[in-house]
Amino acid sequence: MKNETTAHAEIPGYEYGTDQTPKSPVTLDELRQLEQAVGWTEEDAAWLRIAAETLVPKAEEMVDEWRAVIASEPQLVASFLKSDGSPDDAYRAAIKRRFVQWVSDVCLRPHDQEWLNYQEEIGQRHTPAKKNQTDGGHTPPVVPMRYTLGFSAVVITSVHSFLISSGRSEEAVQRMRAAWTRGVLLSITLWTRAYTSPGLW
Amino acid sequence: MKNETTAHAEIPGYEYGTDQTPKSPVTLDELRQLEQAVGWTEEDAAWLRIAAETLVPKAEEMVDEWRAVIASEPQLVASFLKSDGSPDDAYRAAIKRRFVQWVSDVCLRPHDQEWLNYQEEIGQRHTPAKKNQTDGGHTPPVVPMRYTLGFSAVVITSVHSFLISSGRSEEAVQRMRAAWTRGVLLSITLWTRAYTSPGLW
Repeated sequence: MKNETTAHAEIPGYEYGTDQTPKSPVTLDELRQLEQAVGWTEEDAAWLRIAAETLVPKAEEMVDEWRAVIASEPQLVASFLKSDGSPDDAYRAAIKRRFVQWVSDVCLRPHDQEWLNYQEEIGQRHTPAKKNQTDGGHTPPVVPMRYTLGFSAVVITSVHSFLISSGRSEEAVQRMRAAWTRGVLLSITLWTRAYTSPGLW
Repeated sequence: MKNETTAHAEIPGYEYGTDQTPKSPVTLDELRQLEQAVGWTEEDAAWLRIAAETLVPKAEEMVDEWRAVIASEPQLVASFLKSDGSPDDAYRAAIKRRFVQWVSDVCLRPHDQEWLNYQEEIGQRHTPAKKNQTDGGHTPPVVPMRYTLGFSAVVITSVHSFLISSGRSEEAVQRMRAAWTRGVLLSITLWTRAYTSPGLW
């Protein structure tokens, strides 16, 4: 397997596990309670490690597929446009590499303090707190939460055909797909903290 | 099939399509854009009508399964407790019947203005805007959004075994499962509006 630490250092703005990423306001105890609500277990972590053998080499292909969907929908593209209506290509390109890395992180990263901190960071980068900041973008100050959440359905359902290509048993595909569903929803639920009215998250 | 209108009239607080349910602040145009972001199509509506043949007769069993999960987790049970720490059983019982009806609604209701209004209503009933109001409950004023969202993973993944019991082809099960995933995430995303900071939803 590729040396992950080296790979990460090459992605601009991917500040996972560095001093650039502040501590999440969510505690590890709260994370464990949320994992339990999601139904996440160590078995899911194990199935995602198996899924990673198929998904990580195809992560860029998956992200390209998702971004083609985004590109076809004006309300989603809007988050990548400058105020003159032209696309902020530098911003889009910078984000893509981290999106590809996120696929790998969903599959392989342990849910520790660093992981927790980075989920909060990703959430803030979708909201006025930090959108555009990391990449010097010139796009709207928020990806509306309904699209962040709604699009998770695309991310969840589209994994099926990739997992089928693993050639593993129907039972294994089902386990991997359920683990992916839980892992994605856990990650994205943590992103939503930055969007939520105080006391309601 | 049971006469739905009659069935609905029997469920206290199920004010779907009535004057008791205010108009959603979300427009139908915004709903169509959100459907598109979720990947929802008329094909999903058709597959959910097929899924309904299996799921609606088992809706109470599904909800019992989910509520058993909720009952086993103190952070989820908390939303059903009175201030003295005892369960508000009347509140729980009232909600259960509407939860069962929601399974049917996800499968069968057209996504029109009445449906849109009721998704907003459900969202508000999870937040200080309306929690406890419908049923005269004595529970905390909010179901934390992270649990509302996180638990959707249980609702999504648990449908698999029920759909398998339909005896339909693997392909049909896959289509029904994907449609259920999209339908559930669409509904729950609409609930989250009531939780979100102004301008960020």
